Amino acid sequence: MDENLMERVMDEVMKKMGEKKEAPRVIGNPGVTEFVGTAIGDTIGLVIANVDHHLHGFMKIDPKYKSIGIIGARTGAGPHIMAADEAVKATNTEIISIELPRDTKGGAGHGCLILFGAEDVSDARRAVEVTLKELDRTFGDVYGNNAGHIELQYTARASYACNKAWGAPIGKAFGLIVGAPAAIGVVIADTAVKAANVDIVLYASPSTTSFTNEAILFISGDSGAVRQAVIAARELGIKLLETLGNEPAPSSTKPYI
Amino acid sequence: MDENLMERVMDEVMKKMGEKKEAPRVIGNPGVTEFVGTAIGDTIGLVIANVDHHLHGFMKIDPKYKSIGIIGARTGAGPHIMAADEAVKATNTEIISIELPRDTKGGAGHGCLILFGAEDVSDARRAVEVTLKELDRTFGDVYGNNAGHIELQYTARASYACNKAWGAPIGKAFGLIVGAPAAIGVVIADTAVKAANVDIVLYASPSTTSFTNEAILFISGDSGAVRQAVIAARELGIKLLETLGNEPAPSSTKPYI
Amino acid sequence: MDENLMERVMDEVMKKMGEKKEAPRVIGNPGVTEFVGTAIGDTIGLVIANVDHHLHGFMKIDPKYKSIGIIGARTGAGPHIMAADEAVKATNTEIISIELPRDTKGGAGHGCLILFGAEDVSDARRAVEVTLKELDRTFGDVYGNNAGHIELQYTARASYACNKAWGAPIGKAFGLIVGAPAAIGVVIADTAVKAANVDIVLYASPSTTSFTNEAILFISGDSGAVRQAVIAARELGIKLLETLGNEPAPSSTKPYI
Repeated sequence: MDENLMERVMDEVMKKMGEKKEAPRVIGNPGVTEFVGTAIGDTIGLVIANVDHHLHGFMKIDPKYKSIGIIGARTGAGPHIMAADEAVKATNTEIISIELPRDTKGGAGHGCLILFGAEDVSDARRAVEVTLKELDRTFGDVYGNNAGHIELQYTARASYACNKAWGAPIGKAFGLIVGAPAAIGVVIADTAVKAANVDIVLYASPSTTSFTNEAILFISGDSGAVRQAVIAARELGIKLLETLGNEPAPSSTKPYI
Repeated sequence: MDENLMERVMDEVMKKMGEKKEAPRVIGNPGVTEFVGTAIGDTIGLVIANVDHHLHGFMKIDPKYKSIGIIGARTGAGPHIMAADEAVKATNTEIISIELPRDTKGGAGHGCLILFGAEDVSDARRAVEVTLKELDRTFGDVYGNNAGHIELQYTARASYACNKAWGAPIGKAFGLIVGAPAAIGVVIADTAVKAANVDIVLYASPSTTSFTNEAILFISGDSGAVRQAVIAARELGIKLLETLGNEPAPSSTKPYI
Repeated sequence: MDENLMERVMDEVMKKMGEKKEAPRVIGNPGVTEFVGTAIGDTIGLVIANVDHHLHGFMKIDPKYKSIGIIGARTGAGPHIMAADEAVKATNTEIISIELPRDTKGGAGHGCLILFGAEDVSDARRAVEVTLKELDRTFGDVYGNNAGHIELQYTARASYACNKAWGAPIGKAFGLIVGAPAAIGVVIADTAVKAANVDIVLYASPSTTSFTNEAILFISGDSGAVRQAVIAARELGIKLLETLGNEPAPSSTKPYI
């Protein structure tokens, strides 16, 4: 077909559908000292070198942390907490707080707001950088389609972020099994604990989360067993989600477990 | 127009709009024993024959229910609870729990997670099957457009699911009136109770639900009166919703009241 | 291109994309006495001249308010509360309640349900009218893109709606700073209080709101200082939001601060 004709057809079509978008502006670093970077899940990483003294009080932050690192996202909490867990291992920071808004932009799960505390701004910034970098990996076992999502996480050695958020025993292998809608989460939680000899740390459902449509199981124990339990849940969870959505539920990035 | 030309135009258009989807995979029963079926509202029905002993404890389920039936949905709680009400009437099961996530995929209402308990797996499965089958009817008086939704439910004889979820007096006629955004719910609640001599069981608003944008009235009483109140609310509710959305608000399936 | 050909192409395209919508029905006033009007944010304004006596009790409204004015919206709470603040200044009404559902149709924020009480229906209606009319202004400093939103509000003299919702000192200048995702809200809250000498009234985050993905700062003080703080937050907030969304974040209507 004649290229000119095609172009004119497209112009008309786009106009009529009200979707004639401008080419995206590539914006990148806004030249602001607080900005660290962005990542998958509408995630933004920020840092405040010296939090205003009065705000500090209202935020109920321990006064010793002058500097804070900030991770916030519209989509995802599990991937961010797992990534933050690596960040606290790698830097001289502590987790101040982890908050879980009901979000995912119309999806079934959480967003997040994670604060790192540090005495020095370079430590806070480093923690944010490590977290942003880890996200590509920790989104690897998040599988989604139009009907919901399945999320699996695994670490051979849980640290302070997993402990703060979910009570994970520090230093032990730890796994996370999420199914949304929550009905799927219930079934794969059962599948997980039957697949291997693991300890249940916590079971969460809509009335005990931020009203997300998720059922979540947190497990701990021998690293091989935790991994085996998580993998068994993954296999069944994806199958059920694909049945419900009637379409594939691919990984968000690349599976890591 | 020449069919070939049309096809080429369409191909280009679809490509350009990034919406060139593959034909949907029809997936159906995944060959998993836990799977019972799916239904309207991104609803999935599942069953666990023998819940893992430890998980059982964490889920705080009465030990006598070895088997559980599970109904979960992204969209809808009222239709599912009304359907579950028929299921407990028809089977040897009890309602273990009803949880109401904030969901509807970006809409104004709830999703749900309903657990049936049974001593025998065939009873649990049967309860899930009945619920899935009833949903087509109970979605009949859910009316929606881009601005929100109106939901009406009515039963001549409330049973244990309505009682568990909303405190409905068992064995009496019971009605449910929902308007979203909540402002519409307030007005049609007033209309309902003025239209007939009914008892108010409960009034719910965003701060007393899972932060849905709904106002909800639960009524009980003489079956003719309950029905009349519900119908009066429906008429006004649809009118107001269509004004706000500036488009029709059709039934999700086929009105039953 | 030939107009006929164009039309046929468009018809085919629309049909194939399943978006062949009928021309919107313009609906307007439904001829219902309770209806007052609609406005931006899927906002509806309603009035009940004489609330049913029993419903009155279940809604826990002070018996002296026979008439109620109702504002409800899918998107926005700040703009509506600021608008209601003008309405209570201008009419003989009081704020009965302000509820904040988690909504914005898949966005990161709140919807709202605001009730005005009046002894006379004309007062209630007038309050709703003033609120609807003010919304065009109070949405002026709401900036949004695909990643989230920034909201700023400012009044030289806070009144009873701001006091009821957020504890604003009555009669003093008052400002509101919202960033979503919440991470952005944290940073611009810090920027605001560093930009001018203001008093913090309240700091809110996801776990203290209706699980919205917002961090919110409420400030009070000298009117010049409050305005200056709000403007500093606005500048940085928009920049950060545009970085995250990689697209502009324009005003919803027309900036007023």
